[in-house]
Amino acid sequence: MRATYFVIIAGPAGSGKSTLTSALSLWMHENDLDVVKVNLDPAAELLPYTPDVDVRRYVKTRDLMIEYGLGPNGALVLSVDYLINYVGELRRDIEEARGNYVIIDLPGQLEIVAFRRLGPIILSELTKGYRSAMIFVLDSKLASDASSAYASALLALSALYRVKLPMVIALNKVDLVVDYETYRKNPEALDENLFFLRMLSDYYSCVESGIKTVFIEPSINEKLCEVFKETFKEVIPVSSKDMFGVDEVYASLQRVLIGGEDFLTEEFSGKI
Amino acid sequence: MRATYFVIIAGPAGSGKSTLTSALSLWMHENDLDVVKVNLDPAAELLPYTPDVDVRRYVKTRDLMIEYGLGPNGALVLSVDYLINYVGELRRDIEEARGNYVIIDLPGQLEIVAFRRLGPIILSELTKGYRSAMIFVLDSKLASDASSAYASALLALSALYRVKLPMVIALNKVDLVVDYETYRKNPEALDENLFFLRMLSDYYSCVESGIKTVFIEPSINEKLCEVFKETFKEVIPVSSKDMFGVDEVYASLQRVLIGGEDFLTEEFSGKI
Repeated sequence: MRATYFVIIAGPAGSGKSTLTSALSLWMHENDLDVVKVNLDPAAELLPYTPDVDVRRYVKTRDLMIEYGLGPNGALVLSVDYLINYVGELRRDIEEARGNYVIIDLPGQLEIVAFRRLGPIILSELTKGYRSAMIFVLDSKLASDASSAYASALLALSALYRVKLPMVIALNKVDLVVDYETYRKNPEALDENLFFLRMLSDYYSCVESGIKTVFIEPSINEKLCEVFKETFKEVIPVSSKDMFGVDEVYASLQRVLIGGEDFLTEEFSGKI
Repeated sequence: MRATYFVIIAGPAGSGKSTLTSALSLWMHENDLDVVKVNLDPAAELLPYTPDVDVRRYVKTRDLMIEYGLGPNGALVLSVDYLINYVGELRRDIEEARGNYVIIDLPGQLEIVAFRRLGPIILSELTKGYRSAMIFVLDSKLASDASSAYASALLALSALYRVKLPMVIALNKVDLVVDYETYRKNPEALDENLFFLRMLSDYYSCVESGIKTVFIEPSINEKLCEVFKETFKEVIPVSSKDMFGVDEVYASLQRVLIGGEDFLTEEFSGKI
Protein backbone atom coordinates (compact mmCIF):
# COMPACT_ATOMS: atom_id res chain seq x y z
CA MET A 1 0.00 0.00 0.00
CA ARG A 2 1.31 3.42 -0.94
CA ALA A 3 1.47 6.22 1.58
CA THR A 4 -1.16 8.94 1.68
CA TYR A 5 -0.17 12.59 1.90
CA PHE A 6 -2.43 15.49 2.78
CA VAL A 7 -2.08 18.83 1.03
CA ILE A 8 -3.96 21.78 2.55
CA ILE A 9 -4.71 24.63 0.13
CA ALA A 10 -4.85 27.85 2.18
CA GLY A 11 -4.78 31.54 1.35
CA PRO A 12 -6.83 34.72 1.58
CA ALA A 13 -10.14 35.29 -0.23
CA GLY A 14 -9.69 35.57 -3.98
CA SER A 15 -6.14 34.17 -4.16
CA GLY A 16 -7.33 31.26 -6.31
CA LYS A 17 -7.37 28.27 -3.95
CA SER A 18 -10.02 26.34 -5.87
CA THR A 19 -8.39 26.89 -9.27
CA LEU A 20 -5.08 25.67 -7.85
CA THR A 21 -6.82 22.64 -6.32
CA SER A 22 -8.21 21.93 -9.77
CA ALA A 23 -4.88 22.45 -11.59
CA LEU A 24 -2.81 20.45 -9.11
CA SER A 25 -5.24 17.52 -9.04
CA LEU A 26 -5.35 17.49 -12.84
CA TRP A 27 -1.55 17.43 -13.02
CA MET A 28 -1.37 14.62 -10.46
CA HIS A 29 -4.04 12.64 -12.29
CA GLU A 30 -2.14 12.99 -15.57
CA ASN A 31 0.95 11.71 -13.78
CA ASP A 32 -0.79 8.55 -12.59
CA LEU A 33 -1.29 9.60 -9.00
CA ASP A 34 -4.58 8.93 -7.24
CA VAL A 35 -5.97 12.18 -5.92
CA VAL A 36 -8.85 12.79 -3.54
CA LYS A 37 -10.19 16.32 -3.92
CA VAL A 38 -11.87 17.60 -0.77
CA ASN A 39 -14.00 20.73 -0.71
CA LEU A 40 -13.95 22.05 2.85
CA ASP A 41 -15.84 25.28 2.08
CA PRO A 42 -19.46 25.10 3.25
CA ALA A 43 -20.10 28.36 1.34
CA ALA A 44 -18.71 27.17 -2.01
CA GLU A 45 -21.12 27.66 -4.89
CA LEU A 46 -19.49 26.82 -8.19
CA LEU A 47 -16.23 24.84 -8.03
CA PRO A 48 -13.81 24.43 -10.96
CA TYR A 49 -13.42 20.72 -10.05
CA THR A 50 -15.69 17.89 -8.97
CA PRO A 51 -14.97 17.17 -5.30
CA ASP A 52 -14.62 13.53 -4.25
CA VAL A 53 -15.42 14.51 -0.68
CA ASP A 54 -17.64 17.50 -0.07
CA VAL A 55 -18.31 19.21 3.22
CA ARG A 56 -21.57 20.57 1.82
CA ARG A 57 -22.98 17.10 2.29
CA TYR A 58 -23.00 17.98 6.01
CA VAL A 59 -23.03 21.79 6.28
CA LYS A 60 -24.15 24.51 3.91
CA THR A 61 -23.69 28.19 4.73
CA ARG A 62 -26.81 29.14 2.78
CA ASP A 63 -28.93 26.72 4.84
CA LEU A 64 -27.62 28.21 8.09
CA MET A 65 -28.52 31.70 6.84
CA ILE A 66 -32.10 30.56 6.36
CA GLU A 67 -32.38 28.24 9.35
CA TYR A 68 -30.95 30.67 11.93
CA GLY A 69 -31.83 33.93 10.17
CA LEU A 70 -28.14 34.88 10.01
CA GLY A 71 -26.37 37.34 7.73
CA PRO A 72 -23.58 36.16 5.41
CA ASN A 73 -20.84 37.05 7.96
CA GLY A 74 -22.37 35.20 10.86
CA ALA A 75 -23.38 32.22 8.74
CA LEU A 76 -19.86 31.86 7.28
CA VAL A 77 -18.24 31.88 10.70
CA LEU A 78 -20.82 29.52 12.21
CA SER A 79 -20.71 27.07 9.29
CA VAL A 80 -16.93 26.69 9.54
CA ASP A 81 -17.00 26.28 13.33
CA TYR A 82 -19.75 23.69 12.78
CA LEU A 83 -17.33 21.45 10.86
CA ILE A 84 -15.82 20.29 14.15
CA ASN A 85 -18.90 18.05 14.45
CA TYR A 86 -18.22 16.31 11.14
CA VAL A 87 -14.49 15.60 11.28
CA GLY A 88 -15.18 11.87 11.82
CA GLU A 89 -17.51 11.70 8.80
CA LEU A 90 -15.05 13.62 6.62
CA ARG A 91 -12.15 11.35 7.60
CA ARG A 92 -14.28 8.32 6.78
CA ASP A 93 -15.27 9.81 3.39
CA ILE A 94 -11.61 10.60 2.64
CA GLU A 95 -10.42 7.13 3.63
CA GLU A 96 -13.13 5.48 1.54
CA ALA A 97 -12.15 7.56 -1.49
CA ARG A 98 -8.54 6.26 -1.26
CA GLY A 99 -5.70 8.18 -2.84
CA ASN A 100 -1.98 8.92 -2.67
CA TYR A 101 -2.77 12.57 -2.28
CA VAL A 102 -5.65 14.20 -0.46
CA ILE A 103 -6.01 17.83 -1.50
CA ILE A 104 -8.07 19.90 0.91
CA ASP A 105 -9.47 23.15 -0.50
CA LEU A 106 -10.06 25.41 2.50
CA PRO A 107 -12.96 27.87 2.91
CA GLY A 108 -12.84 31.10 0.91
CA GLN A 109 -11.85 33.32 3.81
CA LEU A 110 -8.56 32.38 5.45
CA GLU A 111 -9.30 34.10 8.75
CA ILE A 112 -12.37 32.09 9.66
CA VAL A 113 -10.12 29.02 9.59
CA ALA A 114 -6.71 30.29 10.70
CA PHE A 115 -7.71 33.00 13.17
CA ARG A 116 -10.53 31.38 15.02
CA ARG A 117 -10.17 28.87 17.80
CA LEU A 118 -11.61 25.84 16.02
CA GLY A 119 -9.92 26.13 12.60
CA PRO A 120 -6.50 24.72 13.52
CA ILE A 121 -8.18 22.03 15.66
CA ILE A 122 -10.36 20.91 12.73
CA LEU A 123 -7.32 20.75 10.43
CA SER A 124 -5.18 18.84 12.89
CA GLU A 125 -7.99 16.34 13.58
CA LEU A 126 -8.57 15.88 9.88
CA THR A 127 -4.92 15.20 9.01
CA LYS A 128 -3.94 13.31 12.19
CA GLY A 129 -1.58 10.44 11.43
CA TYR A 130 -0.86 11.59 7.87
CA ARG A 131 2.12 13.47 6.52
CA SER A 132 0.76 16.85 5.57
CA ALA A 133 1.85 20.10 4.02
CA MET A 134 0.16 23.41 3.32
CA ILE A 135 0.22 25.33 0.05
CA PHE A 136 -0.27 29.00 0.87
CA VAL A 137 -1.75 30.67 -2.20
CA LEU A 138 -1.19 34.37 -2.85
CA ASP A 139 -2.41 36.55 -5.69
CA SER A 140 0.79 37.64 -7.49
CA LYS A 141 -0.64 41.13 -7.87
CA LEU A 142 -0.58 41.34 -4.07
CA ALA A 143 3.06 40.25 -4.07
CA SER A 144 4.38 42.52 -6.78
CA ASP A 145 5.13 45.74 -4.88
CA ALA A 146 7.06 46.04 -1.63
CA SER A 147 4.23 46.95 0.78
CA SER A 148 1.94 44.20 -0.48
CA ALA A 149 4.75 41.65 -0.53
CA TYR A 150 5.67 42.45 3.08
CA ALA A 151 2.03 42.19 4.14
CA SER A 152 1.58 38.91 2.24
CA ALA A 153 4.77 37.43 3.69
CA LEU A 154 3.66 38.31 7.22
CA LEU A 155 0.23 36.83 6.57
CA ALA A 156 1.86 33.60 5.37
CA LEU A 157 4.11 33.55 8.44
CA SER A 158 1.09 34.08 10.64
CA ALA A 159 -0.76 31.14 9.04
CA LEU A 160 2.40 29.03 9.39
CA TYR A 161 2.53 29.50 13.15
CA ARG A 162 -1.19 28.89 13.54
CA VAL A 163 -1.42 25.76 11.41
CA LYS A 164 2.14 24.44 11.99
CA LEU A 165 2.56 22.46 8.80
CA PRO A 166 5.46 22.76 6.37
CA MET A 167 4.50 25.34 3.76
CA VAL A 168 4.95 25.90 0.05
CA ILE A 169 4.04 29.38 -1.18
CA ALA A 170 2.31 29.51 -4.57
CA LEU A 171 2.41 32.97 -6.17
CA ASN A 172 -0.71 32.43 -8.24
CA LYS A 173 -2.04 34.34 -11.29
CA VAL A 174 1.54 35.13 -12.27
CA ASP A 175 0.26 35.70 -15.83
CA LEU A 176 -1.25 38.96 -14.56
CA VAL A 177 2.21 40.24 -13.61
CA VAL A 178 4.50 38.99 -16.42
CA ASP A 179 3.43 37.66 -19.78
CA TYR A 180 5.05 34.43 -20.89
CA GLU A 181 6.68 35.98 -23.94
CA THR A 182 8.60 38.43 -21.75
CA TYR A 183 9.42 35.66 -19.31
CA ARG A 184 10.71 33.32 -22.05
CA LYS A 185 13.04 36.02 -23.39
CA ASN A 186 14.14 37.11 -19.94
CA PRO A 187 13.58 34.66 -17.07
CA GLU A 188 14.68 37.34 -14.61
CA ALA A 189 11.57 39.33 -15.51
CA LEU A 190 9.73 37.46 -12.76
CA ASP A 191 12.18 38.59 -10.10
CA GLU A 192 11.93 42.16 -11.39
CA ASN A 193 8.13 42.22 -11.42
CA LEU A 194 7.43 40.18 -8.33
CA PHE A 195 8.90 41.90 -5.30
CA PHE A 196 8.08 38.85 -3.19
CA LEU A 197 10.67 36.88 -5.16
CA ARG A 198 13.20 39.70 -5.24
CA MET A 199 13.08 40.30 -1.50
CA LEU A 200 14.02 36.65 -0.95
CA SER A 201 16.76 36.48 -3.58
CA ASP A 202 18.26 39.92 -2.95
CA TYR A 203 18.66 40.95 0.68
CA TYR A 204 19.75 44.50 -0.14
CA SER A 205 16.75 45.06 -2.36
CA CYS A 206 14.53 43.95 0.55
CA VAL A 207 16.30 46.26 3.00
CA GLU A 208 16.22 49.24 0.65
CA SER A 209 12.54 48.91 -0.32
CA GLY A 210 11.42 48.18 3.22
CA ILE A 211 12.85 51.49 4.35
CA LYS A 212 12.02 53.62 1.30
CA THR A 213 8.65 52.20 0.28
CA VAL A 214 7.10 50.49 3.28
CA PHE A 215 8.58 53.12 5.68
CA ILE A 216 9.78 50.64 8.26
CA GLU A 217 12.51 51.60 10.74
CA PRO A 218 15.85 50.28 9.43
CA SER A 219 16.58 48.12 12.49
CA ILE A 220 13.15 46.43 12.36
CA ASN A 221 13.27 46.10 8.62
CA GLU A 222 16.62 44.32 8.50
CA LYS A 223 15.33 41.72 10.92
CA LEU A 224 12.18 41.16 8.87
CA CYS A 225 14.20 40.73 5.67
CA GLU A 226 16.31 38.09 7.41
CA VAL A 227 13.24 36.32 8.80
CA PHE A 228 11.67 36.19 5.31
CA LYS A 229 14.84 34.93 3.68
CA GLU A 230 15.45 32.27 6.31
CA THR A 231 11.83 31.09 6.47
CA PHE A 232 10.52 31.03 2.91
CA LYS A 233 12.51 28.40 1.06
CA GLU A 234 9.80 27.09 -1.27
CA VAL A 235 8.14 29.87 -3.26
CA ILE A 236 6.75 28.95 -6.66
CA PRO A 237 5.25 31.30 -9.29
CA VAL A 238 2.14 29.64 -10.75
CA SER A 239 -0.65 30.27 -13.16
CA SER A 240 -3.32 27.73 -12.30
CA LYS A 241 -5.44 28.68 -15.27
CA ASP A 242 -2.56 28.08 -17.74
CA MET A 243 -1.07 25.12 -15.81
CA PHE A 244 2.18 27.13 -15.58
CA GLY A 245 4.41 26.13 -12.67
CA VAL A 246 2.10 23.38 -11.40
CA ASP A 247 4.86 20.76 -11.89
CA GLU A 248 7.12 22.98 -9.77
CA VAL A 249 4.52 23.13 -7.02
CA TYR A 250 4.42 19.34 -7.03
CA ALA A 251 8.23 19.10 -6.88
CA SER A 252 8.23 21.58 -4.02
CA LEU A 253 5.59 19.56 -2.17
CA GLN A 254 7.74 16.46 -2.61
CA ARG A 255 10.66 18.23 -0.99
CA VAL A 256 8.70 19.30 2.07
CA LEU A 257 6.63 16.10 2.34
CA ILE A 258 9.21 13.43 1.69
CA GLY A 259 12.68 14.96 1.70
CA GLY A 260 14.03 16.72 4.72
CA GLU A 261 13.10 16.28 8.31
CA ASP A 262 10.32 14.30 9.87
CA PHE A 263 7.68 16.88 10.62
CA LEU A 264 5.21 14.40 12.01
CA THR A 265 7.01 14.78 15.31
CA GLU A 266 6.15 17.78 17.43
CA GLU A 267 9.56 19.34 16.78
CA PHE A 268 8.59 21.47 13.83
CA SER A 269 11.58 23.59 12.82
CA GLY A 270 9.71 26.65 11.63
CA LYS A 271 11.68 26.53 8.40
CA ILE A 272 9.64 25.73 5.35
CA MET B 1 -13.38 74.70 14.70
CA ARG B 2 -11.98 71.63 16.39
CA ALA B 3 -9.95 69.11 14.41
CA THR B 4 -11.48 65.88 13.18
CA TYR B 5 -9.70 62.57 13.71
CA PHE B 6 -10.47 59.28 12.00
CA VAL B 7 -10.27 56.01 13.90
CA ILE B 8 -10.42 52.81 11.84
CA ILE B 9 -11.56 49.73 13.73
CA ALA B 10 -9.92 46.70 12.08
CA GLY B 11 -9.40 43.07 13.06
CA PRO B 12 -10.26 39.52 12.05
CA ALA B 13 -13.80 38.10 12.02
CA GLY B 14 -15.21 37.68 15.50
CA SER B 15 -12.68 39.86 17.32
CA GLY B 16 -15.41 42.26 18.40
CA LYS B 17 -14.96 45.33 16.17
CA SER B 18 -18.59 46.45 16.41
CA THR B 19 -18.77 46.06 20.19
CA LEU B 20 -15.59 48.11 20.54
CA THR B 21 -17.00 50.74 18.17
CA SER B 22 -20.03 50.90 20.41
CA ALA B 23 -18.01 51.04 23.66
CA LEU B 24 -15.53 53.64 22.43
CA SER B 25 -18.19 55.92 20.98
CA LEU B 26 -20.20 55.67 24.21
CA TRP B 27 -17.11 56.60 26.24
CA MET B 28 -16.36 59.55 23.95
CA HIS B 29 -19.95 60.72 24.10
CA GLU B 30 -19.90 60.59 27.92
CA ASN B 31 -16.72 62.68 27.80
CA ASP B 32 -18.33 65.42 25.72
CA LEU B 33 -16.72 64.53 22.42
CA ASP B 34 -18.75 64.52 19.22
CA VAL B 35 -18.51 61.13 17.59
CA VAL B 36 -19.59 60.02 14.14
CA LYS B 37 -20.08 56.26 14.02
CA VAL B 38 -19.64 54.83 10.54
CA ASN B 39 -20.67 51.30 9.63
CA LEU B 40 -18.54 50.24 6.65
CA ASP B 41 -19.75 46.63 6.59
CA PRO B 42 -22.26 46.02 3.77
CA ALA B 43 -22.97 42.60 5.31
CA ALA B 44 -23.74 43.86 8.83
CA GLU B 45 -27.09 42.66 10.15
CA LEU B 46 -27.55 43.62 13.77
CA LEU B 47 -25.21 46.32 15.12
CA PRO B 48 -24.71 47.09 18.83
CA TYR B 49 -24.80 50.84 18.00
CA THR B 50 -26.83 53.14 15.77
CA PRO B 51 -24.58 54.23 12.91
CA ASP B 52 -24.60 57.92 11.95
CA VAL B 53 -23.29 57.01 8.51
CA ASP B 54 -24.15 53.63 7.06
CA VAL B 55 -22.66 52.02 3.99
CA ARG B 56 -25.77 49.85 3.67
CA ARG B 57 -27.53 52.93 2.37
CA TYR B 58 -25.49 52.30 -0.82
CA VAL B 59 -24.50 48.63 -0.84
CA LYS B 60 -25.97 45.57 0.85
CA THR B 61 -24.33 42.15 0.59
CA ARG B 62 -27.68 40.38 0.80
CA ASP B 63 -29.00 42.37 -2.18
CA LEU B 64 -25.94 41.42 -4.26
CA MET B 65 -26.51 37.75 -3.42
CA ILE B 66 -30.01 37.99 -4.86
CA GLU B 67 -29.28 40.37 -7.74
CA TYR B 68 -26.25 38.49 -9.08
CA GLY B 69 -27.10 35.00 -7.82
CA LEU B 70 -23.88 34.94 -5.77
CA GLY B 71 -22.97 32.81 -2.77
CA PRO B 72 -22.05 34.48 0.54
CA ASN B 73 -18.29 34.39 -0.26
CA GLY B 74 -18.56 36.03 -3.65
CA ALA B 75 -21.15 38.56 -2.49
CA LEU B 76 -19.02 39.63 0.49
CA VAL B 77 -15.95 40.21 -1.66
CA LEU B 78 -17.91 42.00 -4.39
CA SER B 79 -19.83 44.21 -1.97
CA VAL B 80 -16.62 45.48 -0.34
CA ASP B 81 -14.91 46.09 -3.70
CA TYR B 82 -18.08 47.93 -4.71
CA LEU B 83 -17.53 50.56 -1.99
CA ILE B 84 -14.92 52.24 -4.16
CA ASN B 85 -17.85 53.72 -6.10
CA TYR B 86 -19.35 55.35 -3.00
CA VAL B 87 -16.33 56.92 -1.33
CA GLY B 88 -17.50 60.41 -2.36
CA GLU B 89 -20.98 59.84 -0.93
CA LEU B 90 -19.57 58.42 2.30
CA ARG B 91 -17.18 61.34 2.75
CA ARG B 92 -20.07 63.74 2.22
CA ASP B 93 -22.24 61.86 4.76
CA ILE B 94 -19.36 61.90 7.28
CA GLU B 95 -18.68 65.60 6.79
CA GLU B 96 -22.38 66.42 7.16
CA ALA B 97 -22.57 64.44 10.41
CA ARG B 98 -19.75 66.57 11.91
CA GLY B 99 -17.67 65.25 14.80
CA ASN B 100 -14.32 65.41 16.54
CA TYR B 101 -13.92 61.71 16.05
CA VAL B 102 -15.07 59.58 13.15
CA ILE B 103 -15.03 55.91 14.10
CA ILE B 104 -15.10 53.58 11.11
CA ASP B 105 -16.20 50.03 11.83
CA LEU B 106 -14.67 47.86 9.08
CA PRO B 107 -16.33 44.83 7.45
CA GLY B 108 -16.47 41.60 9.44
CA GLN B 109 -13.69 39.84 7.53
CA LEU B 110 -10.35 41.62 7.71
CA GLU B 111 -8.92 39.98 4.59
CA ILE B 112 -11.49 41.30 2.15
CA VAL B 113 -10.37 44.80 3.14
CA ALA B 114 -6.66 44.43 3.93
CA PHE B 115 -5.65 41.71 1.47
CA ARG B 116 -7.46 42.75 -1.64
CA ARG B 117 -6.37 45.46 -4.01
CA LEU B 118 -9.17 47.95 -3.36
CA GLY B 119 -9.37 47.81 0.44
CA PRO B 120 -6.40 50.05 1.26
CA ILE B 121 -7.37 52.41 -1.60
CA ILE B 122 -10.91 52.81 -0.20
CA LEU B 123 -9.54 53.52 3.28
CA SER B 124 -6.99 56.03 2.09
CA GLU B 125 -9.58 57.86 -0.06
CA LEU B 126 -12.00 57.92 2.83
CA THR B 127 -9.53 59.36 5.34
CA LYS B 128 -7.59 61.63 2.97
CA GLY B 129 -6.65 64.91 4.63
CA TYR B 130 -7.55 63.75 8.14
CA ARG B 131 -5.28 62.52 10.89
CA SER B 132 -6.11 58.86 11.23
CA ALA B 133 -5.20 55.87 13.33
CA MET B 134 -6.20 52.23 13.31
CA ILE B 135 -7.32 50.17 16.29
CA PHE B 136 -6.47 46.56 15.56
CA VAL B 137 -8.83 44.39 17.59
CA LEU B 138 -7.82 40.89 18.67
CA ASP B 139 -9.75 38.32 20.66
CA SER B 140 -7.71 37.89 23.86
CA LYS B 141 -8.30 34.15 23.71
CA LEU B 142 -6.31 34.20 20.46
CA ALA B 143 -3.53 36.09 22.19
CA SER B 144 -3.23 34.02 25.33
CA ASP B 145 -0.92 31.18 24.25
CA ALA B 146 2.38 31.57 22.42
CA SER B 147 1.42 30.18 18.99
CA SER B 148 -1.76 32.23 18.78
CA ALA B 149 -0.02 35.36 20.05
CA TYR B 150 2.72 35.01 17.42
CA ALA B 151 0.15 34.49 14.69
CA SER B 152 -1.94 37.45 15.91
CA ALA B 153 1.10 39.71 16.14
CA LEU B 154 2.14 38.83 12.59
CA LEU B 155 -1.41 39.43 11.37
CA ALA B 156 -1.38 42.87 13.00
CA LEU B 157 2.01 43.63 11.46
CA SER B 158 0.71 42.57 8.09
CA ALA B 159 -2.32 44.88 8.37
CA LEU B 160 -0.01 47.68 9.51
CA TYR B 161 2.10 47.49 6.35
CA ARG B 162 -0.98 47.25 4.12
CA VAL B 163 -2.95 50.10 5.67
CA LYS B 164 0.01 52.23 6.85
CA LEU B 165 -1.68 54.05 9.68
CA PRO B 166 -0.40 54.28 13.24
CA MET B 167 -1.89 51.39 15.20
CA VAL B 168 -3.21 50.72 18.67
CA ILE B 169 -3.78 47.05 19.49
CA ALA B 170 -6.88 46.30 21.58
CA LEU B 171 -6.79 42.88 23.22
CA ASN B 172 -10.55 42.54 23.47
CA LYS B 173 -12.73 40.20 25.55
CA VAL B 174 -10.05 40.19 28.22
CA ASP B 175 -12.75 39.12 30.70
CA LEU B 176 -12.63 35.68 29.05
CA VAL B 177 -8.97 35.29 30.02
CA VAL B 178 -8.75 36.85 33.50
CA ASP B 179 -11.62 37.64 35.82
CA TYR B 180 -11.57 41.08 37.39
CA GLU B 181 -11.38 39.73 40.90
CA THR B 182 -8.09 37.96 40.13
CA TYR B 183 -6.86 41.01 38.27
CA ARG B 184 -7.71 43.36 41.11
CA LYS B 185 -5.80 41.21 43.59
CA ASN B 186 -2.88 40.65 41.24
CA PRO B 187 -2.50 43.10 38.35
CA GLU B 188 0.26 40.92 36.91
CA ALA B 189 -2.31 38.21 36.24
CA LEU B 190 -2.91 39.77 32.84
CA ASP B 191 0.73 39.42 31.83
CA GLU B 192 0.70 35.83 33.05
CA ASN B 193 -2.45 34.87 31.20
CA LEU B 194 -2.00 36.89 28.02
CA PHE B 195 1.14 35.75 26.25
CA PHE B 196 0.78 38.66 23.83
CA LEU B 197 1.52 41.06 26.72
CA ARG B 198 4.25 38.89 28.19
CA MET B 199 6.15 38.52 24.95
CA LEU B 200 6.36 42.32 24.72
CA SER B 201 7.30 42.96 28.35
CA ASP B 202 9.68 40.01 28.75
CA TYR B 203 12.05 39.34 25.85
CA TYR B 204 13.39 36.10 27.32
CA SER B 205 9.91 34.71 27.78
CA CYS B 206 9.23 35.46 24.10
CA VAL B 207 12.48 33.79 23.00
CA GLU B 208 11.93 30.73 25.17
CA SER B 209 8.30 30.13 24.17
CA GLY B 210 8.95 30.80 20.50
CA ILE B 211 11.48 27.99 20.44
CA LYS B 212 9.77 25.54 22.79
CA THR B 213 6.12 26.06 21.93
CA VAL B 214 5.90 27.55 18.46
CA PHE B 215 8.93 25.49 17.28
CA ILE B 216 10.65 28.34 15.49
CA GLU B 217 14.38 28.20 14.77
CA PRO B 218 16.22 30.20 17.48
CA SER B 219 17.84 32.66 15.04
CA ILE B 220 14.51 33.48 13.34
CA ASN B 221 12.68 33.58 16.64
CA GLU B 222 15.01 36.07 18.29
CA LYS B 223 14.52 38.46 15.38
CA LEU B 224 10.74 38.14 15.58
CA CYS B 225 10.75 38.82 19.32
CA GLU B 226 12.77 41.98 18.69
CA VAL B 227 10.46 43.08 15.86
CA PHE B 228 7.39 42.61 18.09
CA LYS B 229 8.96 44.47 21.00
CA GLU B 230 10.13 47.37 18.84
CA THR B 231 6.90 47.67 16.84
CA PHE B 232 4.04 47.20 19.28
CA LYS B 233 4.17 50.10 21.70
CA GLU B 234 0.45 50.60 22.29
CA VAL B 235 -1.27 47.38 23.36
CA ILE B 236 -4.33 47.73 25.58
CA PRO B 237 -6.36 44.96 27.24
CA VAL B 238 -10.05 45.75 26.87
CA SER B 239 -13.44 44.33 27.60
CA SER B 240 -15.85 46.23 25.38
CA LYS B 241 -18.86 44.63 26.95
CA ASP B 242 -17.83 45.72 30.47
CA MET B 243 -16.30 49.06 29.37
CA PHE B 244 -13.01 47.87 30.90
CA GLY B 245 -9.92 49.56 29.43
CA VAL B 246 -11.87 51.78 27.03
CA ASP B 247 -10.40 54.90 28.65
CA GLU B 248 -6.95 53.43 28.07
CA VAL B 249 -7.73 52.86 24.42
CA TYR B 250 -8.69 56.51 24.14
CA ALA B 251 -5.47 57.63 25.88
CA SER B 252 -3.50 55.39 23.55
CA LEU B 253 -5.27 56.88 20.53
CA GLN B 254 -4.39 60.36 21.78
CA ARG B 255 -0.72 59.42 21.93
CA VAL B 256 -0.60 58.11 18.36
CA LEU B 257 -2.94 60.76 16.92
CA ILE B 258 -1.72 63.89 18.59
CA GLY B 259 1.54 63.19 20.37
CA GLY B 260 4.59 61.97 18.57
CA GLU B 261 5.53 62.38 14.98
CA ASP B 262 3.54 63.76 12.09
CA PHE B 263 2.26 60.73 10.27
CA LEU B 264 0.26 62.67 7.73
CA THR B 265 3.46 62.96 5.74
CA GLU B 266 4.56 59.99 3.68
CA GLU B 267 7.41 59.24 6.07
CA PHE B 268 5.62 56.76 8.26
CA SER B 269 8.11 55.35 10.77
CA GLY B 270 6.70 51.84 11.04
CA LYS B 271 6.66 52.26 14.80
CA ILE B 272 3.24 52.24 16.37
